[in-house]
Amino acid sequence: MRSVIDILDLSVSEIDELIATACNMIESPEKYSELCRGKKLATLFFEPSTRTRLSFEAAMLELGGSVIGFSDAKSSSAAKGETVADTARVVNCYADIIAMRHPLEGAPLVASLNASIPVINAGDGGHAHPTQTLADLLTIYREKGRLNDLTIGFCGDLKYGRPVHSLISALSRYTGIKIVLISPPELALPEYTKKEVIIRNDIPFEETSSLEKALPELDILYMTRVQGERFEDQAEYERLKGSYILDLEKMSLAKKDMSVLHPLPRVDEITCDIDSDPRACYFKQVANGKIMRKALIAKLLSAENVHCGNERSAEFLPKGVCCSNPRCISSVERGLTQLAVIGENGAKRCAYCEAEINF
Amino acid sequence: MRSVIDILDLSVSEIDELIATACNMIESPEKYSELCRGKKLATLFFEPSTRTRLSFEAAMLELGGSVIGFSDAKSSSAAKGETVADTARVVNCYADIIAMRHPLEGAPLVASLNASIPVINAGDGGHAHPTQTLADLLTIYREKGRLNDLTIGFCGDLKYGRPVHSLISALSRYTGIKIVLISPPELALPEYTKKEVIIRNDIPFEETSSLEKALPELDILYMTRVQGERFEDQAEYERLKGSYILDLEKMSLAKKDMSVLHPLPRVDEITCDIDSDPRACYFKQVANGKIMRKALIAKLLSAENVHCGNERSAEFLPKGVCCSNPRCISSVERGLTQLAVIGENGAKRCAYCEAEINF
Amino acid sequence: MRSVIDILDLSVSEIDELIATACNMIESPEKYSELCRGKKLATLFFEPSTRTRLSFEAAMLELGGSVIGFSDAKSSSAAKGETVADTARVVNCYADIIAMRHPLEGAPLVASLNASIPVINAGDGGHAHPTQTLADLLTIYREKGRLNDLTIGFCGDLKYGRPVHSLISALSRYTGIKIVLISPPELALPEYTKKEVIIRNDIPFEETSSLEKALPELDILYMTRVQGERFEDQAEYERLKGSYILDLEKMSLAKKDMSVLHPLPRVDEITCDIDSDPRACYFKQVANGKIMRKALIAKLLSAENVHCGNERSAEFLPKGVCCSNPRCISSVERGLTQLAVIGENGAKRCAYCEAEINF
Repeated sequence: MRSVIDILDLSVSEIDELIATACNMIESPEKYSELCRGKKLATLFFEPSTRTRLSFEAAMLELGGSVIGFSDAKSSSAAKGETVADTARVVNCYADIIAMRHPLEGAPLVASLNASIPVINAGDGGHAHPTQTLADLLTIYREKGRLNDLTIGFCGDLKYGRPVHSLISALSRYTGIKIVLISPPELALPEYTKKEVIIRNDIPFEETSSLEKALPELDILYMTRVQGERFEDQAEYERLKGSYILDLEKMSLAKKDMSVLHPLPRVDEITCDIDSDPRACYFKQVANGKIMRKALIAKLLSAENVHCGNERSAEFLPKGVCCSNPRCISSVERGLTQLAVIGENGAKRCAYCEAEINF
Repeated sequence: MRSVIDILDLSVSEIDELIATACNMIESPEKYSELCRGKKLATLFFEPSTRTRLSFEAAMLELGGSVIGFSDAKSSSAAKGETVADTARVVNCYADIIAMRHPLEGAPLVASLNASIPVINAGDGGHAHPTQTLADLLTIYREKGRLNDLTIGFCGDLKYGRPVHSLISALSRYTGIKIVLISPPELALPEYTKKEVIIRNDIPFEETSSLEKALPELDILYMTRVQGERFEDQAEYERLKGSYILDLEKMSLAKKDMSVLHPLPRVDEITCDIDSDPRACYFKQVANGKIMRKALIAKLLSAENVHCGNERSAEFLPKGVCCSNPRCISSVERGLTQLAVIGENGAKRCAYCEAEINF
Repeated sequence: MRSVIDILDLSVSEIDELIATACNMIESPEKYSELCRGKKLATLFFEPSTRTRLSFEAAMLELGGSVIGFSDAKSSSAAKGETVADTARVVNCYADIIAMRHPLEGAPLVASLNASIPVINAGDGGHAHPTQTLADLLTIYREKGRLNDLTIGFCGDLKYGRPVHSLISALSRYTGIKIVLISPPELALPEYTKKEVIIRNDIPFEETSSLEKALPELDILYMTRVQGERFEDQAEYERLKGSYILDLEKMSLAKKDMSVLHPLPRVDEITCDIDSDPRACYFKQVANGKIMRKALIAKLLSAENVHCGNERSAEFLPKGVCCSNPRCISSVERGLTQLAVIGENGAKRCAYCEAEINF
């Protein structure tokens, strides 16, 4: 069975197929309402995330399946010292598919390596959250009718913003994409992502700290939150923060058909008076997220899906060499084999969290 | 779609209809076992309440529907700063009906104003808990065969007792009701409720601090708990508390067919040896609560239900004027419009928590 | 309706019947997939236990039924001071069968005495956990083809290990059983269990502190964890602990067809490299646990099951005499009748926790 840990585990044609299924599900939900009858989804949420968890659960119920799981590590066996690998082997006996959220990067990959049922990554620390990206892609597709020939602005925290990195990766495989990176220098996109994803794929891009200047040319604006705690200099934060809040005035600078996306929850980075603007698509994104999760669960549980494991080839690290990322599952879980994948630039990266390994 | 935030959102004839449906559901549960197939209830419990939550969930399952939700604010997006309004908009994409419990008064109303699906208030702070009142009404109806011509005693904490205020409001619309208020002076019914509900509706009533004196004339005794922490003078509390505990001796003073109700959980205000007395109806109330929730969910999800929003007319408050109740959602949630309703005496009341607004 | 609080509540022929049903369920799961349609299981977990809870929930869903419940006392009415007896009476109105986990010994028995629906003990403190034992028995049966004529080693913490005591009790009713007790002296099997269960039933047994010496003769090795906190002398613990860790080297001493069981979660008492050894049966135990729970739920909900209450005869204790076990529900819950059962040696034991009562 096949797992989805990262958005790049799905090929472009598979994403196109998921979007086609999703559109079909929207049109004729009744055709899918018994598809997963008798199947069980396990939602293993080692940290709370209501929106994502309820989205997966609603998706499975709409397919006629049922749900077991937990919403918090405190009610799980992890509190008694059980490894992620053992939890996966146990849940493997109870469910037909797993959606896992975990604060440690790579935990869902560990689960997928120890389960014979498909595992969907529902967010692993700062690493990946592929079903959020599927929600974003379906929203762009439904709003614009295409996934190519688009100018897309990413605004706010581009340094730590997991959905931003993941959507940029996903879009880098389409043609005619232009990217505008809008952030304070403190929160700029990491050099690695810029080099390995944007530049390597010859995607035209701009960098600016001014949302106002960037707005007029955008087809899509992807907003994220600028959090005060990311700044060393609080005075600097206070000076800046208003310029990354999207309000009616700034919206007046945008195209009439620009779409505003946001991964939610929003705090105050988009003012409430924009909610009723037809360009505000962040609640549509929520609905689209549920549909794409339905499409993905249906695909992974379908009989034809006979792939075996993830198609990335990993190699053992030499004894004594290990990942140095403290938020990586391999730094925490005992008994885990240290594995590396080879990045596109030839550098070795941890197979779990994709941090570069130096030795 | 229509929401139920307060028991008065339902007319007398709608309550009669709910009771008729409930009796039908008791007689022929199988007729309703597929009524909500394919529908989803979201139980959004921002504070724990097992009994109420499980009652809603059992109700939905017995209608053939399914359930998603959370049982605690810690596992919800509220912990990340999401507003109730945004949570409602998100869950709107996942479910067909919401049951919301929230520590802040007015939160379920905010949800109902932001969702296109029906919202049922499952308890909002000290404000309202209409399905508890529906459970009480069905219990009285099934025990007595009527909702009029009854003498009803309310005993214990009448000051803070939300179920008491709500049941008095509900009963005030029936004829032949007499009310006996039994409490220490510290916990007497608020003047407002007495004036605006009991006196305005010409309901005969008595006030006493003696449960023993009141007992012989009662058809119904509604017990609630007298909590020590409500008293400034602990010596006074110690002196009083025994007189508000219902035991076998006091029960011997009551009519042979008096019914004892209690909203549960009880701690020690009704001794366990009364549980086997046929007049003890508090566990029947639990069963009746589930049935009335079934009837209410069925009604709100039925096709004919095409009302739009709650029928109370609210008005904007002048700029700068706002509700001063610190437990009101409007004191806490950003971006909320300050709204007022006009009370029966012409005074302005906060539309969310019904506290009087002074300006 | 009948409850299962202790493994001895089931006769040998009933256990044989459950095993036969379980084997049938494994072969033809579809024959059972609608058996409990319309029925509800309440999982009342007053302390977290993911594996056990998810196992019960998966079992009920595979029978076509549905599930309500809570996974933690914090989200239950217990936080508001509700007794276990009242919680059971309330849930009785919502569900058709209860699975209860509780930190206090005897709590599920209290529930069963107050509910008219069956109650399954899903673990009550150090007292009993009968469905774990059912999982163990099915695993032994499926691996060995029999439950008699077996040499079974119990290794690790035999003093506090609830699954160990319970499995020894269960096996004591079969013939040709030989038991090998492997533990440090600090964690030896309690004298009571040795006398009343092993010796009274004429079961041949050995005691040793050496796992290595015991291994060659075993058909089954039941591993449990040796926890440092059980030792007064930490230096002693450090010296000992390695000898109770099962690794490849020790496995080389065992029979080619020995089966290794463990109640899970394991921490480090079985090294991960043994997981792929065909003798490692602890994840099979997990799958078998789900199946036996299916068989048990099906049995307890079946129409023919018209027993009334548990068949142990209890007697009232003289006024003022009560159980002195601080972890017993009767020491904590108000309004509980003190009851005793007569042990096989004529001594009085608390009906709730089975501790001896001295007076």
